Amino acid sequence: MADLIGNCIVAQSGGPTAVINASIAGVVEEAYKHEQIEEVFGALNGILGILNEEIVDLSEEKNSAIKGLLYTPAAALGSCRHKLDFASADADKAAKAQRDCERVLEVFKAHNIRYFFYAGGNDSMDTADKINKLAQQQAYDLRVIGVPKTIDNDLPFTDHCPGYGSVVKYLATAVLEASRDLEAMSVGNTCSIIEVMGRHAGWIAAGTVLAKRAEEDGPHIVLLPEVPFDEAKLVAEVSSAMTKYGRCILVVGEGLRGPDGKLISFMGGKFEKDVFGHSQLGGVAEALRAIIEEKAGVKCRTAKLGIPQRAAGHIASKTDRDNAYLAGSRAVQLAVEGSTDVMVTLTREGAADSPKFGTGTAPLADIANNEKKLPREWINEAGTLPNEKFIEYARPLIQGEVNPPMEGGLPKYVRLEKHPVEKKCAAYETK
Amino acid sequence: MADLIGNCIVAQSGGPTAVINASIAGVVEEAYKHEQIEEVFGALNGILGILNEEIVDLSEEKNSAIKGLLYTPAAALGSCRHKLDFASADADKAAKAQRDCERVLEVFKAHNIRYFFYAGGNDSMDTADKINKLAQQQAYDLRVIGVPKTIDNDLPFTDHCPGYGSVVKYLATAVLEASRDLEAMSVGNTCSIIEVMGRHAGWIAAGTVLAKRAEEDGPHIVLLPEVPFDEAKLVAEVSSAMTKYGRCILVVGEGLRGPDGKLISFMGGKFEKDVFGHSQLGGVAEALRAIIEEKAGVKCRTAKLGIPQRAAGHIASKTDRDNAYLAGSRAVQLAVEGSTDVMVTLTREGAADSPKFGTGTAPLADIANNEKKLPREWINEAGTLPNEKFIEYARPLIQGEVNPPMEGGLPKYVRLEKHPVEKKCAAYETK
Repeated sequence: MADLIGNCIVAQSGGPTAVINASIAGVVEEAYKHEQIEEVFGALNGILGILNEEIVDLSEEKNSAIKGLLYTPAAALGSCRHKLDFASADADKAAKAQRDCERVLEVFKAHNIRYFFYAGGNDSMDTADKINKLAQQQAYDLRVIGVPKTIDNDLPFTDHCPGYGSVVKYLATAVLEASRDLEAMSVGNTCSIIEVMGRHAGWIAAGTVLAKRAEEDGPHIVLLPEVPFDEAKLVAEVSSAMTKYGRCILVVGEGLRGPDGKLISFMGGKFEKDVFGHSQLGGVAEALRAIIEEKAGVKCRTAKLGIPQRAAGHIASKTDRDNAYLAGSRAVQLAVEGSTDVMVTLTREGAADSPKFGTGTAPLADIANNEKKLPREWINEAGTLPNEKFIEYARPLIQGEVNPPMEGGLPKYVRLEKHPVEKKCAAYETK
Repeated sequence: MADLIGNCIVAQSGGPTAVINASIAGVVEEAYKHEQIEEVFGALNGILGILNEEIVDLSEEKNSAIKGLLYTPAAALGSCRHKLDFASADADKAAKAQRDCERVLEVFKAHNIRYFFYAGGNDSMDTADKINKLAQQQAYDLRVIGVPKTIDNDLPFTDHCPGYGSVVKYLATAVLEASRDLEAMSVGNTCSIIEVMGRHAGWIAAGTVLAKRAEEDGPHIVLLPEVPFDEAKLVAEVSSAMTKYGRCILVVGEGLRGPDGKLISFMGGKFEKDVFGHSQLGGVAEALRAIIEEKAGVKCRTAKLGIPQRAAGHIASKTDRDNAYLAGSRAVQLAVEGSTDVMVTLTREGAADSPKFGTGTAPLADIANNEKKLPREWINEAGTLPNEKFIEYARPLIQGEVNPPMEGGLPKYVRLEKHPVEKKCAAYETK
């Protein structure tokens, strides 16, 4: 295949993670190795930055800043939740998606962008796929590679998603520490309910089971969206833990649902749906508190770890970070070698307790809008705790520490300087 | 003064912290240096362990376990919230307090305990004072020294309380990281509300201001129990932050009150008061969410960091830990030198940015039931952020890292073996 010569652009989308910036570092450092890639650009705030032609020249960043992306959480280029809603029943929205897609190509052509690397989740892979397809229709030579990213770990075809190992390392540490706290206060006979993210999949909640090194250690119960909520069983399990240990650590995924498929707690309120039509989750811990206090007669304290859990760079997993970097660098290699319209996947082989992680690919269109749930056979029969199969899967993902540099007692993270590339197109209305 | 020869006992009380075990290590290691102290005992679960004669021989612990207390959070000997309620209007409770106090001395005499070190907060200092006074009435030669401990930092006469620096280091890190997350998602225009502990004092909430290195960094607003809640002002401040930064990080102390003195959110429910008659706090973030979404029209996400914040040994402050150890070791020195009925206080002197911490003393009776609030002059005029005076005070307390050893990707904390000392007294009814 003839070399495709031109510029590349990288962008970040969806919720930030502790390690998505490492994927950007992987893209940038790998891109420099290939002479076909002339300039290395970044788009600000994901696809929005392309639509708005807000492009920065990453080669003007200090080397120390690019290296700093290896330990800096969140999304250094900014992120967004802008959907190209081709499938919308609303004809205006579908037409807007088509215009957005055409605009992306207009901007790419203006800047001779021939390589597009998009780090994100389901919706981002859908967007990348649509852009790739339009480029092909227009016979514009473009290579589009997705880089997996989501703390929720719910993308199909990949062993795991960068971002997941770090959120689990943070939350398992929090549960381990809270468990020690409750153990010390066990004469107080309380149940501690910890609500974690993960949307409609239980991967994150399940990961906290890694804190359990002995039967008496928390978590004692993990409620997963994959297992329909059973109130009577919960009350019995909590009572049993209180009798056995004088305490109970209960972890619950925000997307827990009843047998009727309804969320156990739906926040409601003015902003109940985001732009993708996803429900705002959160609040299940308080719903469970009311049930346990009333029906089990056990005093509860709740915690909802919220945004800090997905940005916890101070205790990011080195394995996770390294795989995020690997996914980014492999995306560039694949594109240079001629691939397009695929997402990099992560693979594992070798011994279960010390696997080797590698990469593969999956078609973007197969990723889009396809959620991978926690397999039922990785959860115990009662549906109250992930089992050894899950632990064997998850434990390697939290190994090693990143240890960001500290300054004044707090982590010292980098910011990019974001040198703008001169605009060449007319302004565009993104809304 | 003649040497007082006998055994010593150490106990922990109230809510655990990331560094209270370091105070125990300080007591134990210092006690070994003084030949007047024959045996070094620990009481399980604070005063309850004395009442129940659940005493362990700390000299039988491995040296590595005692050293491990220097990085292990929670309370290795167990804690409790058992109050000696002498002042109760309920005559039965007051009589029970008197019996409890007599029982403590019975147990002390049976084990020739001549030194009592109690690490705790207000209520614990009150308990220690009562025990000291009864010993004097009974002419039983006993030296009682309090060791300050509370994340809430609300004990009087001491520069700060061990436990506080670590909770602030953890929370300021969480706010810094959440701030980066919101910055990356700033096109999403959300307000992130983070609820933290601290009871009726704003020390903990205030401490998160250390995450603010530039004006645009979070926290943008810190609501403190010391400043009566003003709804209109909050709505204006949130709107202003959204306009300026496209985001708002709002930190709120759980004990926030309205101008009428009522808690902004009171959890209520079945367990609304603890054994000290203290209200169960928590839930203010959700109350503020409702207000901000409705009145400012800004989408909010909430986090309530709960128990994990007070047990976060993985990012404990070395300064805090060292001062916790210092307070424990100084307690032993004071007792051996002949002091009793005092709490060790922490002092600071020298340059504001690199102070030297030392110790002093304050009478136990003056500590008991005396809360130190955040001074109004350490808060900006608008009452929405702590000012430079507070920052100068708090910053030195979060310096340095403890870095606990890691195993399998998670912190590896120690447990004591707790070798029981043979009981010599009849059983006692603690309830």
